Amino acid sequence: MRFFSDNAAAACPEAMAALAEANRLDTAYDGDRWSARLDSAFSELFETEAAALWVSTGTAANALALAALCPPFGAVICHRHAHIQTDECGAPEFYTGGAKLLVVEGEGAKLTPDAVAAVHDGVRKDVHQAQPAVLSITNATEYGLVYTPDETAALGDLCRARSLGLHLDGARFANAVASLGCAPADLTWKAGVDALSFGFTKNGALSAEALILFRPELRDATLNRRKRAGHLLSKGRYLAAQILAMLEGGVWLRNARAANAAAASIAAAAGARLVLPVEANEVFLQVTSDEAERLRAQGFDFYDWGPGEARLVTAWDSGPAHVEALAAAIRAL
Amino acid sequence: MRFFSDNAAAACPEAMAALAEANRLDTAYDGDRWSARLDSAFSELFETEAAALWVSTGTAANALALAALCPPFGAVICHRHAHIQTDECGAPEFYTGGAKLLVVEGEGAKLTPDAVAAVHDGVRKDVHQAQPAVLSITNATEYGLVYTPDETAALGDLCRARSLGLHLDGARFANAVASLGCAPADLTWKAGVDALSFGFTKNGALSAEALILFRPELRDATLNRRKRAGHLLSKGRYLAAQILAMLEGGVWLRNARAANAAAASIAAAAGARLVLPVEANEVFLQVTSDEAERLRAQGFDFYDWGPGEARLVTAWDSGPAHVEALAAAIRAL
Amino acid sequence: MRFFSDNAAAACPEAMAALAEANRLDTAYDGDRWSARLDSAFSELFETEAAALWVSTGTAANALALAALCPPFGAVICHRHAHIQTDECGAPEFYTGGAKLLVVEGEGAKLTPDAVAAVHDGVRKDVHQAQPAVLSITNATEYGLVYTPDETAALGDLCRARSLGLHLDGARFANAVASLGCAPADLTWKAGVDALSFGFTKNGALSAEALILFRPELRDATLNRRKRAGHLLSKGRYLAAQILAMLEGGVWLRNARAANAAAASIAAAAGARLVLPVEANEVFLQVTSDEAERLRAQGFDFYDWGPGEARLVTAWDSGPAHVEALAAAIRAL
Amino acid sequence: MRFFSDNAAAACPEAMAALAEANRLDTAYDGDRWSARLDSAFSELFETEAAALWVSTGTAANALALAALCPPFGAVICHRHAHIQTDECGAPEFYTGGAKLLVVEGEGAKLTPDAVAAVHDGVRKDVHQAQPAVLSITNATEYGLVYTPDETAALGDLCRARSLGLHLDGARFANAVASLGCAPADLTWKAGVDALSFGFTKNGALSAEALILFRPELRDATLNRRKRAGHLLSKGRYLAAQILAMLEGGVWLRNARAANAAAASIAAAAGARLVLPVEANEVFLQVTSDEAERLRAQGFDFYDWGPGEARLVTAWDSGPAHVEALAAAIRAL
Repeated sequence: MRFFSDNAAAACPEAMAALAEANRLDTAYDGDRWSARLDSAFSELFETEAAALWVSTGTAANALALAALCPPFGAVICHRHAHIQTDECGAPEFYTGGAKLLVVEGEGAKLTPDAVAAVHDGVRKDVHQAQPAVLSITNATEYGLVYTPDETAALGDLCRARSLGLHLDGARFANAVASLGCAPADLTWKAGVDALSFGFTKNGALSAEALILFRPELRDATLNRRKRAGHLLSKGRYLAAQILAMLEGGVWLRNARAANAAAASIAAAAGARLVLPVEANEVFLQVTSDEAERLRAQGFDFYDWGPGEARLVTAWDSGPAHVEALAAAIRAL
Repeated sequence: MRFFSDNAAAACPEAMAALAEANRLDTAYDGDRWSARLDSAFSELFETEAAALWVSTGTAANALALAALCPPFGAVICHRHAHIQTDECGAPEFYTGGAKLLVVEGEGAKLTPDAVAAVHDGVRKDVHQAQPAVLSITNATEYGLVYTPDETAALGDLCRARSLGLHLDGARFANAVASLGCAPADLTWKAGVDALSFGFTKNGALSAEALILFRPELRDATLNRRKRAGHLLSKGRYLAAQILAMLEGGVWLRNARAANAAAASIAAAAGARLVLPVEANEVFLQVTSDEAERLRAQGFDFYDWGPGEARLVTAWDSGPAHVEALAAAIRAL
Repeated sequence: MRFFSDNAAAACPEAMAALAEANRLDTAYDGDRWSARLDSAFSELFETEAAALWVSTGTAANALALAALCPPFGAVICHRHAHIQTDECGAPEFYTGGAKLLVVEGEGAKLTPDAVAAVHDGVRKDVHQAQPAVLSITNATEYGLVYTPDETAALGDLCRARSLGLHLDGARFANAVASLGCAPADLTWKAGVDALSFGFTKNGALSAEALILFRPELRDATLNRRKRAGHLLSKGRYLAAQILAMLEGGVWLRNARAANAAAASIAAAAGARLVLPVEANEVFLQVTSDEAERLRAQGFDFYDWGPGEARLVTAWDSGPAHVEALAAAIRAL
Repeated sequence: MRFFSDNAAAACPEAMAALAEANRLDTAYDGDRWSARLDSAFSELFETEAAALWVSTGTAANALALAALCPPFGAVICHRHAHIQTDECGAPEFYTGGAKLLVVEGEGAKLTPDAVAAVHDGVRKDVHQAQPAVLSITNATEYGLVYTPDETAALGDLCRARSLGLHLDGARFANAVASLGCAPADLTWKAGVDALSFGFTKNGALSAEALILFRPELRDATLNRRKRAGHLLSKGRYLAAQILAMLEGGVWLRNARAANAAAASIAAAAGARLVLPVEANEVFLQVTSDEAERLRAQGFDFYDWGPGEARLVTAWDSGPAHVEALAAAIRAL
C-alpha cells in the first residue's frame, strides 16, 4: 500500500489503450495525426489559442518554459521549495543558459504577491545583478496547497506590473482544477499565466506532459529548444495519443478527483495531525518516528518529510480499500 | 507502404507486452526492478562490466555520451553527415556546454583513420583552437554502411594514440551487429569504444534507447546530466522493461535481421541503381524524378535524397508483401 | 625586426597619453566621463546612432556580437578561416550558449554572396537543423583582403533577404577603411552591418576594442552579457580614454595607413612571390624553407603559414628602416 | 573626496611605470617575458608551486576559478552577500555551465563552518539536487571583515572532509594579509584553498587580477577557458608587468596598509556608529539620512548601504588630508 508518490503510479486504462491505438505507422516526430490535434484540443480546453507541445517529463516542460521566458542573464523568482529549485538538478539553469533562481519564502510552498514583490524589488536595477524575468509558481504546490484563480491573478497582476513572465508548474494542475472546480482558463491565461507545464504523468499517463504556451510567439523557439534538448521523440504519437485520450471525456479530471478524494479521506482521519490543509492529493502529517514505524509495519509506505513529519501522496489509482485502511490506521495511532 | 524511415515504425509485440507488464506501481525514476537489471543485462550482452542508462531519444543518448567525453572547450570529430552534426539542432553543443564539431569527409558517412587523423592533426596544439577530445562514429552509418570490428578497432587505435574518447552512435547498432554476425563486444569496447548509444526505438521499441558506458567512471556525472536534462523519467520502468524484453530471447537481433533482409531484397531488385552497397537497412537508389513519381503513384513512400536519389528504409515490420511489391516496382522502372 | 603579428605591437603615444590622463579617480565601470562619450563619438564617426561598448579583446567583442544576433539553437555562417572559427577556442559557442558555426569556403578568407547562399540554402528549414541566424565576415580578412562597400552591401542584401543578422569582425577594420578611403558608414550600417567589432588593439591601443551596435535594441542585453562575461572592467575609463584618443584627430586612420603602407612596400618587393593581393597590412609570401631560414638569419621574424608560405604582418609602428630592410632582403632572395 | 569604492581608484605609480616599461614589442598573449615570470613570482610569494594567470577583472578570475572546481551540474556554496552571488550578473552560472549557488547566512558576509555544514548537509545525496562541489569565501569579506588563518583552515578542513573545493575571492586579499600580518600562504593553500582570485585592481593596478591555482592540474583547462571567455589579451604583458611591479618591493602590501590605515582612522572617529568592526578598508556607519546629507554637503562621497547605513571605502590613495577631514566630519555629526 504505497503512498510514497503519485509519480510512480500505474498508467490508467485510457492511456494504455491510447498506446495500442497509436501503435501503427504514422509520421515521425510530431507530424502524426495525434500530435497535430494537440493545439486545438488544448485551445478548446483553455478557451483561447494555445500552443501545446508534448514532452516526457515535467522537468523538461518546466525548463523549456523557463528558457522561453528568461534570458541567460536573467533570474527566475520561485519558492524556496519549488521543484525547479530543489528537484531538477539545475535543469532551469541548464536550459536557460545559466539564469539564476531567486527564492522566496512562504507557507506550504505558496507565494504571496507581497513576498514576491519584496524579493523582486530588492534587486538593484543595474547590470551587476541578474534581473528577474519570470515568476514560477506551482499549483497545486509541492505541499499540496492550491492557488485560487484570484490568488493566481494577483500574482499575474504583479508580473504584468513588473514585466515578468509567469510560469505555472502544473505537475498537479489537474488536482488543483479538480479541487477548485473552476475552469482551466481561470487558473492560467485569464490570471496572467504565460506558460503552463500541464502534468499528465502523475495523473495516470505513462510518461507524458504537455507544455502549454499561451503566447504563440514563444512557440517556434521552444520547438527548436525541445529538439535540441533531445525531447523530440521520433514516436511522439504515443505521447500525444495518451494526452488526447485523457483530455477526452474528462479522464484527467476524473483521475484527479479520485486522488483528491482519497487524500481528503486520509485528512479527515488525520485531524489535528495535519501540518497543512489538504487541498489536493498530498497529506502532511505530524507523526513521531515510533508512529511512522507502526504505520510502516502495517504495510504503508510513505516519505519521511523532515523530523516528525510524513508525506503521503494519493494517486488516481489509490484503491479505496487501501485508503480506508490507512485512514483507520492513522485514527488508531 | 512506407519506406520513409524506421524511426516511425510501430512497436513490436514484445515491447508492447513489456509496457503492460510494467504497468503496476513500482519505485519511481530508475529505482524499479527493471531499471535495476539493466547494468547486468548489458554487461552480460557485452561480456564486460558496463553501465546502462535508459533515455527516450537517440539525440539524448548521443548528447549525454559526448558531454561525458568532451569538455566545453573541446571538439568532437565526426562525419559531415553524422546525425549529431546534421539532425540534432545543436544538442551536442548544448549538452557539452559549447564544444565544437569538426567534420570529416568520407564515402557513405563512413570515416577512415587517415581522414580522421588529417583533421585531428590539423588542429594546432594551443589554447586558440578547440582541442579534439572525442571521435564520434555511427554504425550502421547514416548511409547504411557498416564498420567491421577491424575498421572500428583501427579507429579505436587512433583514438588511444591521440587521447581521444570514442563514441559510437548506434541508432542502428542492431542492424550492424545483425549484418556482421559478430559479437556486440567486437564492435564496441574491444575495438576501443567508450560509450555507445544503443538504439531500440528504430528497431521496435516505443521510445527507448540505452546509453552504454564502458568506462564506469563516466557513470555518476552522466546520471546527473540525465536528470538535469529532464531525461530521468519518473516512470522509467516502462523504458527499462521494453529494453529488457527486446534483449531477452534476442528480439533485438531478430528485428534487425528482418529489417536487413527486407533491405537486401530491395537492393537485389535495384541492382545498378544502388548508390551505395546495402549493408544494413537503408537503400539509396538512383531514380529520376519521373521514376520517383511512378513509385509514389503505386503507393510507396520514401525520402528524396538530393537530386536523382531516393532513400528507402526498412524496419522490423516492413511486411514481406510490401517489400516484394516494392522490389517488383523497382525492377519495372 | 618582428613581422609576426600586429597583435603584439606597442601602444601608440596617444593611447599611452590617454592612460595618464585617465589616471585619476572617476566613476567605476562605464560611468566615467570617457565611457559616457563613446556613443556620441562613434555615432558621429559612423554618421548614425550607434551604441558603443568597450571590451578588452576582439574575441569578447565578436562573441558578444554573435550572442546578440544568434539564439543558442541557431547557426552562424562564416568563412572556414574566420578568426571566430579557428582562433577563439569556441568563444562564439560559449557566449551564444551553443550555436553552431557553418563554414563557407572562399579565396583569401573572403566570402561571396553565392557561396554564403549555397551554405545557407542547404540547411533544411526544420527543427532538426540549427537554423542560420547571422553571417559573420571579417574586413580586412584574415588573409589581408578587403571587402569593398559594394561587396559588403551585396552580402548585406543577402542577409536581409534571408533574415540573417550581419556581424563584421573588424579587428583590422581601420586597415580596411584606410585601404579603401571610404567612409566608415559605407562598410557598415549602410551596407547592412548590424554589429561591428572595431579593433583598436592591433592598431595601437593597449588592449581596447569597441563593439559597435547599429541596432540600438541590442544594447541592453549586451550590457548584461558583457558584465556576466567578466568584461565590465571597474576601471573601464582607461579603455574609453584610449579609444577616444585614437578617434580624435584620426589617429586610428593614421596608424592604419602607416601599417598598410609598410605592407605595400614589402608587397612591391615581393612581386611574383605574393600568394594573395596585399590590400591591408598582411603579406603572404611564397618562400622555400631555405629562403625563410635566410630571412630569419637576417633578423626577420614571421609566421610560417603552411608549407612554402610565410605570413608577414605590419603594424602602426613597423619602422621604415625595418620595412626597407625586409623589402631588400626579399628582393635579394 | 570620494569614499565610494576602491574599484575606481587611480593606478599607483609603480603600475603606471610598468605599463611604460612593457610598451615595446614582445610576444603576444602570455608568451612575453613578464607573463613568463608570473608562476615563479607567485610561487615564491606563496612558498609553494602555484600557477598564476592574469585576467582583467575579478569577476573573470572568480568565474574561472569556480568553473575549474565545479561541474555544470554541481553547486557552489557561498555567502548570501558574496560578490559572486550579488554582483556578477550570473558570471559563475555562465562560466560553470549552469551550476547553482547555494547561499549561507553569516554576520558581516563571513561564514562559519557550522553554517556551511548545515547548508551542505541539507542537500540530499541524489541526482535530483545539485550537489555542492565548492565553497567560495571572500577575504576580506564584502563587509570588510577578515578571516584569520585559523578560521580559513577550519573551513578548509570542512571542505576536505566533504570533498569540496575551496575558492577564495581575494579582491581585497592584500587588505586581509596587511590586516593580519600573516604570510600569504597561511591564508591560502596551507589553509586548504585551491584557487585564489588575487585582486590588484582595487589595490592600485589599472585593471589586473591574478588567478592563482594551488592545484597545478587545474591549469590547462583554465587556460582554455580563459581564451574561450575572451580573456586572453593579446597584449597581456601590460597586465603581467603591472602585477610583477606591485609584487616587487611589496608595493601590494604597502598600498593595502595605506588603505587599511585610512579606514582605521575613520573607524576611530566613528566609534559607536560602527555597524561592524573595521578589519580592512571598509567602514560601515550608522548615519541618519540627515547626517548622510550633511557629510555629502561637505564633499564626501559614499554609498548608501540600506536604511540608516553608509559604506565608506578607502583606497591606497585615500589622501591623509581627505581622511582626516572625513574623520573630523564624522566626529562633528
